[in-house]
Amino acid sequence: MFEDSVKKAQEIMKSRGLGAIFLHPGVNTYYFTGLMKASFERLLTVIIPDEGEPVAVIPRFETESVMEYSKIKYRDVRGWSEDQDPYVLVGRVVEELGKSKSTIGIDGKMEYVFFEGIQRALPGARFIGAADVLNELRLIKSKDEVELMRKAARIVCKGIKAAFESVSPGRTEIEVSDVLHGEIRRHGGLSARAREAHGNVFSGPTSALPHPRSSEKKIESGEIILIDVGAQYEWYFGDVTRVAVLGQPTEKQKRLYGIVLNAQKTACEAVRPGIEAQELDRVARRIILEAGFGQYFRHRLGHGLGLEVHEGPYIVEGNRLRLRPGMTHSVEPGIYLLGEFGIRIEDDVAVTEKGCDNLSVEEFPKDELVVI
Amino acid sequence: MFEDSVKKAQEIMKSRGLGAIFLHPGVNTYYFTGLMKASFERLLTVIIPDEGEPVAVIPRFETESVMEYSKIKYRDVRGWSEDQDPYVLVGRVVEELGKSKSTIGIDGKMEYVFFEGIQRALPGARFIGAADVLNELRLIKSKDEVELMRKAARIVCKGIKAAFESVSPGRTEIEVSDVLHGEIRRHGGLSARAREAHGNVFSGPTSALPHPRSSEKKIESGEIILIDVGAQYEWYFGDVTRVAVLGQPTEKQKRLYGIVLNAQKTACEAVRPGIEAQELDRVARRIILEAGFGQYFRHRLGHGLGLEVHEGPYIVEGNRLRLRPGMTHSVEPGIYLLGEFGIRIEDDVAVTEKGCDNLSVEEFPKDELVVI
Repeated sequence: MFEDSVKKAQEIMKSRGLGAIFLHPGVNTYYFTGLMKASFERLLTVIIPDEGEPVAVIPRFETESVMEYSKIKYRDVRGWSEDQDPYVLVGRVVEELGKSKSTIGIDGKMEYVFFEGIQRALPGARFIGAADVLNELRLIKSKDEVELMRKAARIVCKGIKAAFESVSPGRTEIEVSDVLHGEIRRHGGLSARAREAHGNVFSGPTSALPHPRSSEKKIESGEIILIDVGAQYEWYFGDVTRVAVLGQPTEKQKRLYGIVLNAQKTACEAVRPGIEAQELDRVARRIILEAGFGQYFRHRLGHGLGLEVHEGPYIVEGNRLRLRPGMTHSVEPGIYLLGEFGIRIEDDVAVTEKGCDNLSVEEFPKDELVVI
Repeated sequence: MFEDSVKKAQEIMKSRGLGAIFLHPGVNTYYFTGLMKASFERLLTVIIPDEGEPVAVIPRFETESVMEYSKIKYRDVRGWSEDQDPYVLVGRVVEELGKSKSTIGIDGKMEYVFFEGIQRALPGARFIGAADVLNELRLIKSKDEVELMRKAARIVCKGIKAAFESVSPGRTEIEVSDVLHGEIRRHGGLSARAREAHGNVFSGPTSALPHPRSSEKKIESGEIILIDVGAQYEWYFGDVTRVAVLGQPTEKQKRLYGIVLNAQKTACEAVRPGIEAQELDRVARRIILEAGFGQYFRHRLGHGLGLEVHEGPYIVEGNRLRLRPGMTHSVEPGIYLLGEFGIRIEDDVAVTEKGCDNLSVEEFPKDELVVI
């Protein structure tokens, strides 16, 4: 997979006149060269020239661990030591590659401070964003990639199921989050709470906020509990949202659940090659609008996912991209009543030749509001 | 704190001729305006003009949650809706501020893809990195900030203690990591495993790798266990490393522990205002070198910490910055025998008027190799 990705990238680079691309550590270094590493303050980059092999520039003391955890063994790794200026090394490598006067693509995820250093090291080069080159390839998933995502989505569903089963009056959101993440890990999933979110379990009025934070708030009888969690299996994401109610649901809760469910299922059924991303958003939005809650569905219908939990294709008004087989994205309409509660139902789907392969639905039926 | 930071930043901006600075969501939006938010694919930025109040540009559907979780209430928030181009709004805001022809500073953490959009929206502006302006202010901590860090370091130590106590032959690194993070959360700490690291507990040969990954590997009798974990309390970090051995330590393990301990304590005693950062590194390195293990201490002595787990001042050869009261950093020498084991001891210290305030040592004595 990795060598093939580099070849494909090099074809696009040649057609656009790019001499080299600098990758930021993380999803792109993984996708193109098998190296998964979080970005920190020390420069780590992989340089893809328009022909030949990539060159990795790495803090020297980390060379062994980077090699240990890489799927492919680099033939060309340059280490810089703690007391060296890594950009001097960058300048030398690009000079060797014969690209120091070329147009150089910068990974869209590159932090500005690294870009500054690279720019300073290559005064004869021209710089341009390379996000579109990198994302274009990642947009279409192979069958293997889709299977990793199906596995991830199933693990996420198992976690959500265990978390709902652990809820009782008085348990806190953070306690239930601990069950959720523990179960995901037990099944081989890699889930990290977003550092600022404290967890992925939201109850009562908190469920109506977009991107809220879990807290020590106790879950009370009658409250909606919304769990939205992404986790990776071999670096590929599943991202699923389910809601439940503790004790007897109110008529209003049931009614809103029904509307969101209808919008979500109808949108899933509309997924097929050739449909515009924005049209899918409209399909779901129309149902919620006609039910009288249009103004309470305030975000796009979905986002692509893969090595990132949010990536293209974005399922949003204005995006005329036509879906193609191998694209993978979430379908997640919602209704949010601020101060009351929110309902969102989220599945991950893969576009197939014929229509839609729902990666998450089997493990956790969504057909009615779960009562705990 | 927040308004004061903005004023100080504006003074530096004027002296350097910067008309505005764009902040990337996260530590800098928090430090300057009380807004803590992870970066995602949607543009969220705070613009600090060289005078007057900051303006926040935020996805409209997130406005409520951003306000809910911000320490200060913004007077000027501009929301962009899902089907709008946020950079059109950025251009309009900067035009209104009268800064569209000025020199504009870019947060060093800004991802290139956002920088590209901002650059496109402001064709008359000149751009320059603003990392030094932002970092300069954050380098000196107030007493309140130091106390939050002390609390964080203590919580981390409690977590490490509980984790070591949970070790028995056959338990896996990931199981012990679960105890570690659970205990940290129980004490009000915010700890997230690094997504790629799977955990923060490393045993046997894995302890010798820099930035390794926890795994399902079982911990065996006789092995070194190294725990290195950072956690936040009210967003400020503590970052502590301790090692223990399961069962009877070997003479070699004890000897190496003694050397690292001596280097670590001697360096802590050398911390005082006026000393160069590189001199502190040398103090520790000399001891390990003289003991014959110089080549096995392959990283710098330490890093600053605060709102980030790694920030300035970096305690490394070549850094001639003189320490000043209020600076906070780690002291963490180590010896790593690849294929065998690694020893590292890490405390967090604050530079005081007279010398060194060790923020982590009280909670977890390091005076001898802990035997489990």
